[in-house]
This record gives sequence, C-alpha cells and structure tokens, in this order.
Amino acid sequence: LADPRFFNKPNSLSLESIAQISGAVLGDGVDPNFLVNDLAALHQAGPDHLSFFDNVKYKDDFLKTKAGACFVHPDYVPHAPSGVRLLVSKSPYKAYAKIAQNFYPEPKADGIISLQAHIDQTAKIGAGCTIDAGAVIKAGAEIGQNCIIESGGVIGQNVKIGDFCRIGTNASVSHALIGSHVRLYPGVCVGQDGFGFAIDPTGHVKVPQLGRVIIEDHVEIGANSCIDRGAGPDTVIGQGTWIDNLVQIGHNVRIGKGCVIVAQAGVAGSTVLDDFVALGGQVGIAGHLHIGRGARIAAQSGVMKDIPAGEEHMGYPAMPLRQFMRQIATLNRLIKTQKNHKS
Amino acid sequence: LADPRFFNKPNSLSLESIAQISGAVLGDGVDPNFLVNDLAALHQAGPDHLSFFDNVKYKDDFLKTKAGACFVHPDYVPHAPSGVRLLVSKSPYKAYAKIAQNFYPEPKADGIISLQAHIDQTAKIGAGCTIDAGAVIKAGAEIGQNCIIESGGVIGQNVKIGDFCRIGTNASVSHALIGSHVRLYPGVCVGQDGFGFAIDPTGHVKVPQLGRVIIEDHVEIGANSCIDRGAGPDTVIGQGTWIDNLVQIGHNVRIGKGCVIVAQAGVAGSTVLDDFVALGGQVGIAGHLHIGRGARIAAQSGVMKDIPAGEEHMGYPAMPLRQFMRQIATLNRLIKTQKNHKS
Amino acid sequence: LADPRFFNKPNSLSLESIAQISGAVLGDGVDPNFLVNDLAALHQAGPDHLSFFDNVKYKDDFLKTKAGACFVHPDYVPHAPSGVRLLVSKSPYKAYAKIAQNFYPEPKADGIISLQAHIDQTAKIGAGCTIDAGAVIKAGAEIGQNCIIESGGVIGQNVKIGDFCRIGTNASVSHALIGSHVRLYPGVCVGQDGFGFAIDPTGHVKVPQLGRVIIEDHVEIGANSCIDRGAGPDTVIGQGTWIDNLVQIGHNVRIGKGCVIVAQAGVAGSTVLDDFVALGGQVGIAGHLHIGRGARIAAQSGVMKDIPAGEEHMGYPAMPLRQFMRQIATLNRLIKTQKNHKS
Repeated sequence: LADPRFFNKPNSLSLESIAQISGAVLGDGVDPNFLVNDLAALHQAGPDHLSFFDNVKYKDDFLKTKAGACFVHPDYVPHAPSGVRLLVSKSPYKAYAKIAQNFYPEPKADGIISLQAHIDQTAKIGAGCTIDAGAVIKAGAEIGQNCIIESGGVIGQNVKIGDFCRIGTNASVSHALIGSHVRLYPGVCVGQDGFGFAIDPTGHVKVPQLGRVIIEDHVEIGANSCIDRGAGPDTVIGQGTWIDNLVQIGHNVRIGKGCVIVAQAGVAGSTVLDDFVALGGQVGIAGHLHIGRGARIAAQSGVMKDIPAGEEHMGYPAMPLRQFMRQIATLNRLIKTQKNHKS
Repeated sequence: LADPRFFNKPNSLSLESIAQISGAVLGDGVDPNFLVNDLAALHQAGPDHLSFFDNVKYKDDFLKTKAGACFVHPDYVPHAPSGVRLLVSKSPYKAYAKIAQNFYPEPKADGIISLQAHIDQTAKIGAGCTIDAGAVIKAGAEIGQNCIIESGGVIGQNVKIGDFCRIGTNASVSHALIGSHVRLYPGVCVGQDGFGFAIDPTGHVKVPQLGRVIIEDHVEIGANSCIDRGAGPDTVIGQGTWIDNLVQIGHNVRIGKGCVIVAQAGVAGSTVLDDFVALGGQVGIAGHLHIGRGARIAAQSGVMKDIPAGEEHMGYPAMPLRQFMRQIATLNRLIKTQKNHKS
Repeated sequence: LADPRFFNKPNSLSLESIAQISGAVLGDGVDPNFLVNDLAALHQAGPDHLSFFDNVKYKDDFLKTKAGACFVHPDYVPHAPSGVRLLVSKSPYKAYAKIAQNFYPEPKADGIISLQAHIDQTAKIGAGCTIDAGAVIKAGAEIGQNCIIESGGVIGQNVKIGDFCRIGTNASVSHALIGSHVRLYPGVCVGQDGFGFAIDPTGHVKVPQLGRVIIEDHVEIGANSCIDRGAGPDTVIGQGTWIDNLVQIGHNVRIGKGCVIVAQAGVAGSTVLDDFVALGGQVGIAGHLHIGRGARIAAQSGVMKDIPAGEEHMGYPAMPLRQFMRQIATLNRLIKTQKNHKS
C-alpha cells in the first residue's frame, strides 16, 4: 500500500466507475455500487482493495487473495476464488494502470513560482506553472501552461517547452524544442553539443553542432540520460517514446513514435529508429544504421547492421534471435564433446 | 603524498597508537614511540612515512623502500629490508585503511547552514548539519544530526534522512527513507518513478509507481547512479552495500547487506541480490531474478537466469566461470584447426 | 541550416578568406571574391552556401548539389558538377570544421557575474568570466580568465581552473587542477572519491582517496561522465583528449594526449592509456592494464589484458580484430554444418 508520507490517500471508487474508466466488464452478479478504497498486490490486498492478476507466475496468490475486487483475464474467470468481485478485461494490467492513475494522479502544477527561482525577465512563463527554488530559466525561453520546473532544472536560452511538461531536479536543457506532456527526469541532459570533430594529430578540430533537439508530445526521458543535439540535422525523439535512465542518444539520431529504450542503452550518431522499436538494457547501436518498425533488440546486444522491421535480434554482434540461440546450443555441444574426448 | 591544497596535514602518530588502531603487531625490536608523520606508497615513502605491502606485484618496491614503517603480512617479515619498522598484520591493506582514516578523516559537518540554501520552513534539520549554498530542502523533509547537504543537492518532500549522512552536489532525492552514515555522491538520483507502463499502440499507459526507496545504514552510492523507487513494493539497498558510479537500479530491486556493485552495472526491476553479492563493471542483470548470497559476476556479463549462492559467473549470457573459460578455449582451438585446414 | 533561435547568423566570407583559413586551394577559375553566407549539407545547400563532400556514400548528393561552393578532395575534382566553386583539400571535413568554427564560434565569456551566483569571498575569479545564476564557487577556488561557469555548476574548495574553460550546468568539480580551454559538459562529476575499500565481513573499510584529478589543456568531457580522483597517485586526463557522455574513469587512471573515448565506455582503476588511444562506445577496460599508443578498441569490447601500441581489438574478452572476425566466421560455419547434419 502506498505510504501516505509520499502519496495522497485516494478517494473511494465504485466498481461501476472502475469498469467505466478501465474498460473492464463486471463479472456475473457483482454489485456495481461496491466501493474500493485502495490498490494492493494480490497477496497483500484486503476486502476493500482492488488488485489484478496478469502473470501466471502469481497464480497461487490469485487463488488465495483476500482482495475485494480484482482485474482478471476472461480465461481465468472460472478459476477465481469465490468472494472476489471480478472485473474482466483482456488487458488486466492496462486496466489496472488506468485505475491506478485515477487513484494516484501525477502531481499537478499549482501556479506557484518560487522567489528563489532564477528567471530571466525576457523568459515567457505560461499560466499555472510551478517553478521551484533554485530552478533557472534563461533569456528568451518560453514555457507553456501548467508546467513544473523542479529545483536545479536549467532551461537554456530560447528553449521552447509546451504545456503540462515536468522538468526534473537538476536537469539541463538547451537548443531544444519540446512538445507537451513531456517529462524529463532528474539529471537529464538535453541539447548539449554532440561528439563531433575532425581527427588531427595536432589536436582534434571541433565541428560546431548546429542542429537542435526536437522532443515530441508525451515523451519521457529517464534520470541522467543524455540527448545530444544534431550536428546540422536535428536529433528527434518521436511522440510517446519512453526512454529509461542513463541512456545515451547521439547527434542526428531520429527515434520514431512509441519506442521503448531500456536503461543504459546507447544509440550512436545519425542512426534512425522507426516507430515502436524496443531496445533492451545496455544495448548499443552503431552509427548511421536503420532499425525497422517494431524491431526488438535484446539486452546488451551490439548492433552493427541495419535491422529489418519486426525482427528480434540478440548478440554481439547482434543477429536474428533464432541464430543466436543456435550459436549458444552449438557452443554448448562442442564443449561437451570436448570434455568426452579428454576423458 | 596528499596535496595540502585539498587535504589537511595529519597529526603525527606513534607506532604504538598505530598498532592499537589497526590491530597490527609491532615487529621485533620496533620502538613503540617512533612517530609517523604521513602515508606514502612504498616507492615514494621517506623515513617518517608509513607504507604498506599487500600485492606481490610490488615486491621490488618493498625490498627497496625507504619507508620509516610498513604494514606487512607475517609471511613477508623475513624478506623485509632492514631499517623498516614492521607492523605485522594478516590484512595489511585493511590495517592501512584504518590508519589512513585516522590520518585523513572524512569531512565532518560544521553546523553552518548557508543563507543561500533554500529550506522549506516545515523541514526539520537536526543539530550540527552543514547545508551549503544552493541546496534545497523541501516541505516536510527530516534530516538527522551532523549531516552534510552539498550545493545543489535537492531533498524532496517528506524524505527522511538519518544521522551523519552526506548528500553530494546536485544529487536528487525523493520518496526515500535513508538510514545513517549514508553517502550519496554528486549527481545521484534516488526515488524517481521506475520504468513502468502497459504497452498500448495508442500510447503506453503509465503505471503509477507507489513504492519508496529504502536505503539502510552505511550505504555508499556513486556519482550519477540512479535508484528508482518501487512500483508498489519498495526498492531496498541493504546495510553496508557499496555502489559505484553510473549504476542503474530498477524498481522493486532488493539488494542485501555488504554487496559491491561496480560502475555502469545495471539491475533490472524486481531482481533480488542476497547479501555479499559482487557485480563487476557494466554487468547487466535481467528482471525478476534471484542472485544468491556471495555470488560474484564478472565484468560485462549479462545475467539471464538465477544464480546460486557462492557461484562465480561470466559471459553473455552469463554461465559458470569454468564453463565460460572452456568455451573460450574451445573457440580458440577451432580457429587454429581451421587455419591449418586452409593452409 | 542553423536555427537563428539558437545560433547567431554568421557574417559573409569571401572564398579567398575561406581558402586562407581552411588551408584549401581554390579550384581553377574560381572567383576569390565570391561571398558565402552560410553552411549547408550538399542536398540542402543553395547558391550562397558552402558545403563539403567527404564520404563516397553521398556521391549522388555531390553530383546534384546546388551549393555555391564546396570543399572537395583532389581525386573528386574531375567529377564535380559545373557551377560549383571548388575548394580543394586533402581533408575536406577538417577544412569544413575550421570554417564552421569561423562562422559559428563557441560562446564567449562576457564578464557578467550573476548576483544570483554563490561565490565565496575567498575565491579568485579571473578577468572576463561569466558566472551564471545558481553557480557555486567555494572557498579558495581559483578560476582563470574568460571562463564560463554555467548555472548549477559547483566548483569545490581550492579547485584551480585555467583560462577559457567552460563548466556546464549542474557539473560538480572537487579536488582537481584543470588546465585551459577545458570544457566540462552538463552533469559531469570530477574529483569525487574513487571506489576504494578493504573488504570486510563486518563492513567494508573505506580507504581515503588522497589523490587529485589533473585535467590538461583542451580536454572535453561529455555530459554526465564521471572522473574519480586518485587514491594516492592522481587521475590524469591528457591534453586534447575527448571524452563523450556517460563515461566512467576510475581512480589513478592515466589517459594520454589526443585520446577519444566514446559514450558509456568505462576504464577501471589504475589503467594507463597512452597517447591517441580510441575506445568505442560501451567499451570496458579492466583495472591495472596498459593500452599502447594509438590502440583502437571496438565498441562494447571487454578488455582484460594489456594491448600493444597500434593494435585494433574487439570482443568479449577483447582479442585482435582479425581473430575476432575469424571466430565469428567459424561459429557461423559450425551452425550451418550442424543444420545440415540435422536435416
């Protein structure tokens, strides 16, 4: 259960409202007026709590749960313990996510601008913004409505940010145009020069980085991740893409819509990710490559070639998943053979 | 020798005191009143310096050292050059560490709260704390006694911190309960939402992250590392665990006591590390795994399965160390065979 | 073309000046008084723009370009489209870089010290420095002339910085001596204690880190990278070395001149890189190793042994590039053989 020290106690919701918000359907005979007071995991839930069952691994918890109500896939309705009010959905986890958002909404801007924030007089701040102590807004910056700029967040000269954005503590933003509903987590660095230079024995010659970072709506960028600005073209993060912590995105990279990039992955300069690409943790992608729509790259893979749409790759260097599995099986067989030869 | 620009010159210590503090035993005929003025490496030490010999690689330096005194393992006493006063210990490095702490103690809080710090009037600050210019303490936060909050460190709403902690420059802390004697290095991010969402073609649905980060006593977390808060359960860092720089710890991860996690390693969500686990640099551990007590994972390994207590693993995917070594040997042999076939 | 929101429109330059600055030679019959107004890529350039052709991949763009002038290698002069004024150079990209620097010079310090910066009265600030709101300069720090300290940058006690340096937003510096023309990007952490302790079942014993970080002239360190100070010896970054984002440099590491270290690479403690070493992205190098002059390590490699000067290595563990390629070929052949056996 959420610690009231950090989270506001939610209001109660009727199962009827929950069904409506989540798109789930009430099970047979369930009282639509039954009130749920909070959320909890299957094994912790009590009679006034809502839970969800989405992963077979937790079937035992499901069978024994004391939850007052539970999201469940249609296939599992027959196995449900009696006494649990069912909310039937083909996507129980997504249904749960929607109700959790309703119970525990994101913090909202409250319109309070700290006297201890450092705001240039030429910056434009939209209505309803929160700007915390120690935040810095530089000359010519434009912040939309209802944004939150947290302590130590630095919004560089002429940067433009849309509505309902949240810029985390100690994040740095320059040379960027940012859409609405964007969230940068603490320590994120956006818009610094990319790693561009001409090698020279008497001292590398820096190539001025003349592009920008374009971040579309509903993007999230995790703590301490870095997005370099373009060298001439822009670096682009497409709508609804989610980037985890400590990720590196090089200059000129273009990332499509709805991509997911897990922690510590890195994408080198000028590579293009089409929509809905997924990169596992610590994946590395070389520069100037093209990763097709919906491709999925397993954690720690090192990608050195283009990847066609929809394919799943793994390995170092990365190869189609099936080939990687065969490689591992072959190696294991060889080692065994070898041991037999020796003995 | 430590640069007096950055480190205070230590007071002298007698060999008797040094033996007492370090647990070492004075060698035969050593004058307990001899005074040591500073520490130095074997090859740099002079007649009033204390050194240590712990690694056979540096045996030549030991044989030629001009150090006034030296920690040494009992096995090497017979080889010691005459003129060096011996302090005999089975753990010469640990004995050295204790004396170095005595000569060069950690900076202590001095009770000075900068007028340029931004402290909410509802925050509680214990006696003796140092709070530097530009630090931010938000509403309801509780800081124990003798803590140091450095410039740009941001302590979020209702966060609780024990005694003798040090929060580094530009570190960000939210949704966390922190024990005593904890150190967060510069740029650390603790308590931000984990990477949790239900995938949806019309836009990923965020799952509110309702847990906390619990950091037990004597934990150190290195520069720019990130610890996400739990999704429902808490993320826990156990007592005495040391985490290096640029490490990622996902939501719901539970790390036991006395673990060591080297730079750029990452642990994905809901994985459990028992006590005294050691992860090498750039190791990646997938989610929902269990790593047994005292297991050791070599640098850059990619762990995709549970690892039993006490085992040493390596590789991508990680496997028992012996198997990995065999795999490498087999590959090398194959390549050679192959070359012979060709020629 | 550079967005005037973020970049100042350049002054025009004659081809004669361009040839002189870049070291290129005007092609036959080219009017030295022709004026160029801006830079653009081959496919975007118009009649008053300067472009460059350096990568055969873009030959089609070169053949069709509408650029008024273009840097080109002598070998491609015969293929140049008529109407394009040629600037002939054996290093067209480097020539372009020099002109781009002339058109778009780095931001210069303007001598303005914000009243909202937090500067200790014992700090020494050279002439012409810019110090932004929210920057912190601690006691005894010495900053040379014409430096820029950006918002949230924290310069620790007694740190010394040369001339023409730029310390990025929210960067943290302590225990460091920094040369001139050095740039630290946002979020960089320099000088914190390295990861040094003696393992002990009752609690690791910290070893005080008594060295410094020495950064020589013309070094660049990318966003959120971390450079630990030495344990006793210093950590050294040699002249003209460029380090990308999210890189980890451990204590006592010595890096020579002109090295290039790509994003997310890590170098463990006490390792030495000679001059002009290049590390690809996500490379890991174990501790106490020696990497010879001009060695090149491919992305994601894991280096566990010394590498001789001039060699190119790849793999996990890293091996000479040729051997790695042979290993991959051998594996692929085995998998095929295997498939045939099965069928």
